[in-house]
Parts: sequence; C-alpha cells; structure tokens
Amino acid sequence: MSLDFKILKTRGDARRATMTLPHAAVETPVFMPVGTVASVKAVPQHLLEELDARIILGNTYHLYLRPGHELIRRMGGLHRFMSWPRALLTDSGGFQVFSLNALRKVTEEGVEFRSHLDGSKHFFSPEHSMDVQIALGSDIAMAFDECTEYPADYERARRSLDTTLRWAERSKRHFDAHKNERPWEQSVGGRGQGVEDQAACFVGLTPNLFGIVQGGMYKDLRRESAERLVEMDFPGYAIGGLSVGEPRELTREVIAETLPYLPADKPRYVMGVGYPDEIVEYASMGVDMMDCVLPTRAARHGLLFTSEGRLNIKNKKFAEDQGPPDPECSCMVCRRYTRAYLRHLMTAQEPLSAVLNTVHNLAFYLETMAKVRAGIIGG
Amino acid sequence: MSLDFKILKTRGDARRATMTLPHAAVETPVFMPVGTVASVKAVPQHLLEELDARIILGNTYHLYLRPGHELIRRMGGLHRFMSWPRALLTDSGGFQVFSLNALRKVTEEGVEFRSHLDGSKHFFSPEHSMDVQIALGSDIAMAFDECTEYPADYERARRSLDTTLRWAERSKRHFDAHKNERPWEQSVGGRGQGVEDQAACFVGLTPNLFGIVQGGMYKDLRRESAERLVEMDFPGYAIGGLSVGEPRELTREVIAETLPYLPADKPRYVMGVGYPDEIVEYASMGVDMMDCVLPTRAARHGLLFTSEGRLNIKNKKFAEDQGPPDPECSCMVCRRYTRAYLRHLMTAQEPLSAVLNTVHNLAFYLETMAKVRAGIIGG
Repeated sequence: MSLDFKILKTRGDARRATMTLPHAAVETPVFMPVGTVASVKAVPQHLLEELDARIILGNTYHLYLRPGHELIRRMGGLHRFMSWPRALLTDSGGFQVFSLNALRKVTEEGVEFRSHLDGSKHFFSPEHSMDVQIALGSDIAMAFDECTEYPADYERARRSLDTTLRWAERSKRHFDAHKNERPWEQSVGGRGQGVEDQAACFVGLTPNLFGIVQGGMYKDLRRESAERLVEMDFPGYAIGGLSVGEPRELTREVIAETLPYLPADKPRYVMGVGYPDEIVEYASMGVDMMDCVLPTRAARHGLLFTSEGRLNIKNKKFAEDQGPPDPECSCMVCRRYTRAYLRHLMTAQEPLSAVLNTVHNLAFYLETMAKVRAGIIGG
Repeated sequence: MSLDFKILKTRGDARRATMTLPHAAVETPVFMPVGTVASVKAVPQHLLEELDARIILGNTYHLYLRPGHELIRRMGGLHRFMSWPRALLTDSGGFQVFSLNALRKVTEEGVEFRSHLDGSKHFFSPEHSMDVQIALGSDIAMAFDECTEYPADYERARRSLDTTLRWAERSKRHFDAHKNERPWEQSVGGRGQGVEDQAACFVGLTPNLFGIVQGGMYKDLRRESAERLVEMDFPGYAIGGLSVGEPRELTREVIAETLPYLPADKPRYVMGVGYPDEIVEYASMGVDMMDCVLPTRAARHGLLFTSEGRLNIKNKKFAEDQGPPDPECSCMVCRRYTRAYLRHLMTAQEPLSAVLNTVHNLAFYLETMAKVRAGIIGG
C-alpha cells in the first residue's frame, strides 16, 4: 500500500495534513528531531514521547558503521533496537559520506570512503544504501544522492545532478524489490515492548522511499531534478543540498523555486533546516517535513531557543535568574527549573545540562510546529 | 524541634525506622544517592522522584566553590535552586578538602586549601562549614571533621581525633546558634514549584546536625570518639573516615566495633559505602543511612549492578543481548531497553548512556534497601 498523505486543510501555500506511516500517524507540517546513532542525544525515549514527537531521524551512515545495520536487523530493526515505537526516517548516508570524508572517491557505481571512526575503507552504492535502510526498518527511506558542495559551478552541479538522478532510479528499483524484507514484522520475543502494539495499528503498511531533489543553487537544474524525479513517481520528495554553507536568503529562494515542481498531493521535505523562524516560514511556503540537528546540538552548547529569542544560558547575567528558560513554554524543563540552575549545570559541566537543554529546545521546536498546524486549521 | 526518629521494628541488630526531616519522611535503612554539585549526575529530578529517592546528598565543598553558597542562599536554598522538594543531606566539606587538596594546611582554627578548579586559596573552619550548610538549607548537616588518611599511625590518628572532637563542639555551638537562618522559609516567588507545597507538611522542623566519629582504624579511639560525641548530644551520628583505601574487612570491623557506642534511639550513618552486598550487611548490623558515589560513578563507566551480579555493559558479549539489564528489575530502563542497546550507547559514547545506566543502578540500590526494609518488617 502506498503512502497515505491526507491533506486536511490548506491556507495560502501551507498545508495541514496527516501522513500515515507504518509506525505512526504524523501530523504535518512536522519538525523531526535527529537521532543520529539510535538516540536523540541525551534524551530518553519516554521523554520524546511526552514531547509528542511522532517521527525522528536515524543516520544511515552512522548506524552502518556502528553498531552496524546487520546487527540492527538481527535485533528486529531500529525501532525495536532503540525501543522507539513511533516513526523513523533514515537519510541515505550520502550527506555524511560527503561531509565527513575528505578522501571519498565517487564513481558511477557509488562512493568509496573511509570511516571517520577508524579510517577503514567502505563503499556505498544506491543498492547498498537501500539494503542498509531496509535492514534498519525505516518508515521513510531516502534515495542515495550526491550532496553537491557549495559553492559548485554549473558544470559541476549538472554532472552531480545527473549522477544523483541515475542513483535515484537505481535506489527505487532496488528498494521496491526488497522493501518487504523489513525487519519489524519478523521480530519476535525480546525487549521493546510497546513497539509491536503500536505498530499493530498499521499492519500491512510498507516502508516508503522518497526522492531527493538536487541541482546546487541553479534554478533550471532544480526544476529538471524535480521533474525527472516526479516521473519516477516517488511517494514523497525531499529538497536536499541545502544548509551546506549558502546564505539563508539563497536557501529560501531555492526552496521557493523548487516547490512548484513537486506534486501538491505528496509530502515535501526540506532536509537539514533550520532556525525556528525558518521552519515556520518554510511551512508557510508549503513544506511538510523538516529536520535539523540545530535544536539538539545548540542545546549541548548552551544555546536555548525561546519565545524571547535565543538565550546563551552560559551568560553570567543568568546566574541568579529565577525565571524559567522560556516563560511561554510549558515543557517539563520550563515548569520545573530556573535559568540560574541551567546556567549552573552548564558551568559545572554536569551531564544533566545536555538533557534539560535538549528537552527544552525540542519542546520549543515541536510546539512551534504545533502552532503552525493550529494556525492552518484555525485560519 | 529535634529530629523525629521512630523505630518501627527491629530484627537482630537491624532497625526499620521513619526519620522525619523538614522536607521528607525518610524510611530507613536508606541509601542516599550523591548529588555532588546540585545534580545527581545525569538524572533529572523527576526521575529521582519516580525512583522514590527521599533524600539525596549535596557536597558542601563543591557547592561552596561553584555556584557558591551565598548564591544558593539567595536562590532560596539548595532545594529550591535545584528543584528538589525532598530531603537533602550535606557533608561538611572535610572529606573533599582532604582528598582533593595535596597542599592543605591544617591548624587548630581550620583548614587552608586551594580550589581544585582554579587554585584559588580558601579557608574552612567548623563555623564556616556550618554557615555554608545553613545557607544551602540542608535537612541534615554534618559536623566539620578531619578525615584521617589511611594508613595513619596511632599518634597521628589520636591527634586528628582530638582536633575533630574540638571541631565537633565548635560546629554544634555555631549550628545551634544559627540553624534558624535556614533559607527555605524565607524564599518567595520564582521557580521550584512543589518545593514549598511538600515542605509545608513539615513546617516548624529545623535542620539537624550530625556528629562524625573518627579515630582511624583504632578501636579505642573510635570508642572514645563515639562516647565524647554522644556526650555532646547530637540528633544523629555518622561513622566517617572509612572507604579511604582500607581493606573491606577492616571497614566492617570498624563499623561493628563503633556501633555499640552509638545511641540505639538515634540514626546511625556510615559515610561513603558501598557495594550492594555491603550496604545490605551494614543495614543488618544496625546502620540506618549510607551514601556512596559508586552506583552513579560506576554507571558512567558502564558498570551495572544487577541481581545477577555486576555487568560491564561495554563487554562484546552483550552486543546482541536482547535481555533487559537486570531480569529481576522493574525500573524504567529494565522495562524498556536491552543490554544490546545500552552497550551500543556506551560504545558510541552517547550521552543517553550515562542517563540510563545511572537510573538503573540507582533503582537497583534503592530497591535493594526497600527489600532490606521489607525484610525487617516481614521477619
């Protein structure tokens, strides 16, 4: 059965929809927290559930290297391995292969690269990326793409795009042939209670493969990329190759220029964005899904996102501030702790600092999108 | 009002009692998790509450240096600063002054030492230790003592004990004169909801100062120390100067030799112990309170305490172990996660590793003592 993406209401270009995945019904527009190596850094899974996160990301490159996708398959898939009963999206590994590997070697067949962990040699092809993502048991897998660097001249972007399009076809062919080898219905016994119960609602749903639009910062290449991917008929489309160092105005422009070429009745996902005001803006332009390490990574460095703007919680001015991190926020951190305490935890390098800062930042991002969704419905 | 310590039942030398402190009714025998710098490392306060921790420790030395006791007083005391509504015990600072400072200078007046953080010079006297602990707002403060090193010859232990006894008198005099300057009833407004509500049950109760028995590993000195402290009439007594490198058998011996000289109707606290089987054994000997960094520190190094013994969760043999960390444990970690997942988090150095390992170890320790208490009542 193909992806069920039901648009409930539109407002301008923005859409309020429900996307039914094998492990969760996801309300869009949605922000997806990043759980790089089978953990949204520092946050226990039950707190993610309390934050009403319905879908999180896993990184194919990282999980392939450690603990390995075959191990995760034997453990019943990533949902069960990490005890996350709701939906999971995995990237293709392409972005990390390119961003973490100075010595990669790209051929038509795929990419040879060295592990950033131990320098060992590895090879990713579109087929291999699909195999890994199927082993992980993602609800949404992503086609293997080359993430074009920034800046890239036209010829470079053109060649890279052509490769990505051929890889998209190979990804789709391999994925469609093997997507029923998902691990989650095979797994029996062991831990991860709740994973099966919840999944039972969606039995029979299959994993989905999204295509990724590339083309650098060139409008005609983006259009060509989108049109050719749409011909291949993916259940959803991502706009990739952004947040690679380009100015923010350019990010917005590329998104605006690409969206019209993506089908209105399928989910549209912008990868790797962004600040709170950006995700609101992109949702208003008709983007349905976004992900970014920003809220989690910034939290670990003491940067909090709040209704009053960004707070650097390390700042001395918060040393005796008895107010909550964000007076408008009702997350478990803002209900219980003060800025003074969060500053102290950061200054004393206490591990609880990362936990509390991250929970708040994710609460802020998820609440931001909840308000966007309410705004579309409420008018 | 003095400390209410009601013995409900005895069994052999073991006692099942309820100790009513300004911020909690604590069921003893009790194990107290250590929250060194205003946080039980890696564990959010609401999870400590879910584990039914009723009393935790704060370290006077660490809190004095950072964020500073005067800041904490201005924030309404440590309970409110860290949003911990239940009971807090603070040590005297003596142990850290001695263990973290090679260059300390001890005089009759007190100890001059350098901060392990920045090398700055500081001075602790019994009076100053009391002032700091009163500013923190502890439910139980500890007399300022010299923790005799191990090994120490008789003359050294004798001199050290004499100093400690004079300091105990000074501690008590200063504490009694100032204990009503506790910060928690003065604080108004700000965060920390729940702290006041819970404390309201115990309004009128005052902080308590415990004396600390020293005397090295010498039976006659321990006896003398205990008897002279008992003459001073503290509401509770600790046995200090243990877990300083002596063999475990000697620890047990000193405890066994000291307990008979402590009043049967007051709480007895052995500081800085121990392994799970030790805390069970000491409780059976009549010890009411214990604390140790072992469960929390070991957790961060991947050592889990379970009903099947100690697990080094980093061990490769757990890589695909779908069992819970401890099949007998019903904590949130054992209910939800596998050994394979905990091993992965540790191997990948994920911050969630410390959170989950610590929650389990504390659950194991607290459950161990719950069973000890049930055993005394149940017969």
